[in-house]
Amino acid sequence: MKLGEIVALCGGVLEGGDSSLDIYGVGSLAEAQPGEISFLSNPRYNHQLSDTLASAVLVKKDWDGASHCALVRVDDPNRAFADIAVALSPPALTYPPGIHPSAVIDPDAVLDDDVCVGPHCVVEAGARVGKRSVLLAGCYVGHGARIGDDCRLHAHVSVRAYCVLGDRVWIHDGAVIGSDGFGYSPRKDGSWEKIPQLGTVTVGDDVEIGANVTIDRARFGSTRIGDGVKIDNLVQVAHNVQVGHHTVMAAQVGISGSTRIGSGVQLGGQAGLAGHVQIGDGAVVGAQAGVTKSVSPRTFVSGYPAMEHKRAMLLQAHLGKLPDLRKRVQALESQHRSGESPA
Amino acid sequence: MKLGEIVALCGGVLEGGDSSLDIYGVGSLAEAQPGEISFLSNPRYNHQLSDTLASAVLVKKDWDGASHCALVRVDDPNRAFADIAVALSPPALTYPPGIHPSAVIDPDAVLDDDVCVGPHCVVEAGARVGKRSVLLAGCYVGHGARIGDDCRLHAHVSVRAYCVLGDRVWIHDGAVIGSDGFGYSPRKDGSWEKIPQLGTVTVGDDVEIGANVTIDRARFGSTRIGDGVKIDNLVQVAHNVQVGHHTVMAAQVGISGSTRIGSGVQLGGQAGLAGHVQIGDGAVVGAQAGVTKSVSPRTFVSGYPAMEHKRAMLLQAHLGKLPDLRKRVQALESQHRSGESPA
Amino acid sequence: MKLGEIVALCGGVLEGGDSSLDIYGVGSLAEAQPGEISFLSNPRYNHQLSDTLASAVLVKKDWDGASHCALVRVDDPNRAFADIAVALSPPALTYPPGIHPSAVIDPDAVLDDDVCVGPHCVVEAGARVGKRSVLLAGCYVGHGARIGDDCRLHAHVSVRAYCVLGDRVWIHDGAVIGSDGFGYSPRKDGSWEKIPQLGTVTVGDDVEIGANVTIDRARFGSTRIGDGVKIDNLVQVAHNVQVGHHTVMAAQVGISGSTRIGSGVQLGGQAGLAGHVQIGDGAVVGAQAGVTKSVSPRTFVSGYPAMEHKRAMLLQAHLGKLPDLRKRVQALESQHRSGESPA
Repeated sequence: MKLGEIVALCGGVLEGGDSSLDIYGVGSLAEAQPGEISFLSNPRYNHQLSDTLASAVLVKKDWDGASHCALVRVDDPNRAFADIAVALSPPALTYPPGIHPSAVIDPDAVLDDDVCVGPHCVVEAGARVGKRSVLLAGCYVGHGARIGDDCRLHAHVSVRAYCVLGDRVWIHDGAVIGSDGFGYSPRKDGSWEKIPQLGTVTVGDDVEIGANVTIDRARFGSTRIGDGVKIDNLVQVAHNVQVGHHTVMAAQVGISGSTRIGSGVQLGGQAGLAGHVQIGDGAVVGAQAGVTKSVSPRTFVSGYPAMEHKRAMLLQAHLGKLPDLRKRVQALESQHRSGESPA
Repeated sequence: MKLGEIVALCGGVLEGGDSSLDIYGVGSLAEAQPGEISFLSNPRYNHQLSDTLASAVLVKKDWDGASHCALVRVDDPNRAFADIAVALSPPALTYPPGIHPSAVIDPDAVLDDDVCVGPHCVVEAGARVGKRSVLLAGCYVGHGARIGDDCRLHAHVSVRAYCVLGDRVWIHDGAVIGSDGFGYSPRKDGSWEKIPQLGTVTVGDDVEIGANVTIDRARFGSTRIGDGVKIDNLVQVAHNVQVGHHTVMAAQVGISGSTRIGSGVQLGGQAGLAGHVQIGDGAVVGAQAGVTKSVSPRTFVSGYPAMEHKRAMLLQAHLGKLPDLRKRVQALESQHRSGESPA
Repeated sequence: MKLGEIVALCGGVLEGGDSSLDIYGVGSLAEAQPGEISFLSNPRYNHQLSDTLASAVLVKKDWDGASHCALVRVDDPNRAFADIAVALSPPALTYPPGIHPSAVIDPDAVLDDDVCVGPHCVVEAGARVGKRSVLLAGCYVGHGARIGDDCRLHAHVSVRAYCVLGDRVWIHDGAVIGSDGFGYSPRKDGSWEKIPQLGTVTVGDDVEIGANVTIDRARFGSTRIGDGVKIDNLVQVAHNVQVGHHTVMAAQVGISGSTRIGSGVQLGGQAGLAGHVQIGDGAVVGAQAGVTKSVSPRTFVSGYPAMEHKRAMLLQAHLGKLPDLRKRVQALESQHRSGESPA
């Protein structure tokens, strides 16, 4: 797009730039490349303006400062930026209904109206795919599994036998729903006997599941993911875990078996949760925290073993002053030994 | 199943319920939904009975308490529950022998009797798949790889060139056996030169490998996984690692190159092991532990850096009392300054 | 190979062994099996020679010691070992140009000369695959994605729409390039609204990406991986992360959104980096470190929260002496109470 077209799109005023300039993309002040447009909304980032490589920057109408690049003055740089980003993005992909001839659909599977099944997908007997759902290349839907309406499964997703997805569930590439739970009984000779994992996974509506996530099927009953849950890449959810509505999990979180997580919980990246604990509604677990016991609702825990975040910070501060404390004890000891008094 | 059929199945006595009730599934007291049956074996969970949503609960013959739902009195609720769970589960899937026409099998590959090769699998030249082994949709078996008898590879598994699996190896979806080890030599200009990874991976008998696990091929020789080893989802095993028999690894464990792990070892979730260390037979590594040096047999280590668990707990307790210790030092200092004596 | 052939290959002298012995492979002294050859270069490992199962061992010409297995005296055991390893390895795999008939290539995709596209690959409209690049079984290349020259994608790799790979990029099985970034706005009712992820991923030249890695596309603009970067298995790179040239990341590292990593940085296994921080050129982040704020160039940080490694070690040492410090404070207190003087 020409810079002039962009100025028109967002109803802005161009300053110090050529409206015939070609703009190819958008980026933050720190990341933008020449030929891209950026924005400055929060004065905290004023200093980034002088270093930006962007060819043009959206600023507030009354922004007062100098710049080496073209400025576009607008009412709301944030919003204008979002609009321009959409205009400059490649058109959103559409997935016209249809079943690719290379897909292998069992005659006993049911595909609802307007599904799109990509190349090399496999849908086993008894499985059902709901209306307008999209399966991209190479997805596997096991026996008796049920995919709701308006779902989207990216390439190489596995939804194993008898698992159930609600409506509007998006799953990114390589995620596995319904792998066997990790359960063994010890035998006397030190070997392990597999405990059959007879349950399934039940995923609610409006859930998004990241790339290469793994969610194990229950030993009995269901591993349950509530409505509106958002799960980032490479997360592990073990058998029989129960997750409440609208809980979010950052990447690489690991949740052990039978743990129950409330609604509106936030789990930071790489956090690990022991088995059979409960995380109350609205609790927050810090990144890399190791949760070894239950967490009360609306509590923020962090560290290993996880404790209330304020206390974790306090202990961290005390640890940092430990070398000083030791010196003070040494001083007391030597004063004591010498019988000296500070007088 | 009707509740009456279930009562007959486990030889129990029905109390306070209608034998024509439909029972669809099983669940723990905490997780069961209406229409499901649960069990109460350990009196520790007595309190969960009053909150359960289960329509019926298995209890001991002599259990003495009140319930809002139907009770089924049996000798061993635990065992009866397992039997009912199997009876209520969908029939176990079977994989009849045969090669799906969409599978691409090199003419120089050898498939033993009664293998089942699913849609879109690829088996390269020189590879061999043993008797009765099952490859589900989209598996990749590289050149010269060998899969033993009675193995099961779920969808999208990669077993790369020349890797060897024993008998009765189960691998869950998306796991990768034999990706290149991570080895580079620094060049003078700061770039990295790849060190060829010429070895393979050798997996013993009766091994189970979780979804999206990665096991790298050796630089030379073999990365080795012993008999009976059980590996949970998203575990990383680097090149030249050696793992003894019957060792178990929880999800998201990471093992660095050339580390040697004994037999009967247990690695907790998200534990990380440095390279070139040895973990003795029967050792236990706590969840999230960071193992930086070798661990003696039958030792339990935890924390970062990992140390004997008892000592880690001791230090943790001392850390928790550090604010108090500091106050005590302050008191001593102020007493000392004032020359005051406690008497 | 016969042992005699090996001796000839490396110009060595055989001692105490039969030149007609069959040698099947190579291994370190600790790992080698009967029928394999090993080497002893560093006298630190002298003690391993007596326990090795290797059938023959390469030693220096002037090495002076006894051995139960055949010795091959050479000038440089290290180098001779590498040469023999190559000679004993299966021949390197080649990927002759051609497009497997089961691959699904959109008529609007462009495949350059001499590409090799394996079975069941999918290349969408507008995508381009550069000269001599190899796509192994089941790879997915999304709409408008661009793969450079001489790339190699192992089985089940996804490169999603509009992502760009440079030349000589190798990606191992199951890695996902261009999954959606993890971005949501909170709604008043506690649910989350997806923020469209309109950007892409741009990968430089000579990059290697491990198995089951996930690299998210940017919200706007590009997640960028510089030239010569090496990424081990199961790493997570979030949206809008920028990685400089020749940076290396060990397995299971997690990098949060918009973090900027310099050139020549080394990230240890399982390290986690918060969002919006900067890691200076040449910095080193220890394994399992939790980086919560920016790191200066050429600084080594470790621990949680990550701090300068020397300081982390110091605090660790102080923590280890905390039980002793507490006793010393108790002694001071009791001396003080008793009014006793040490003299």
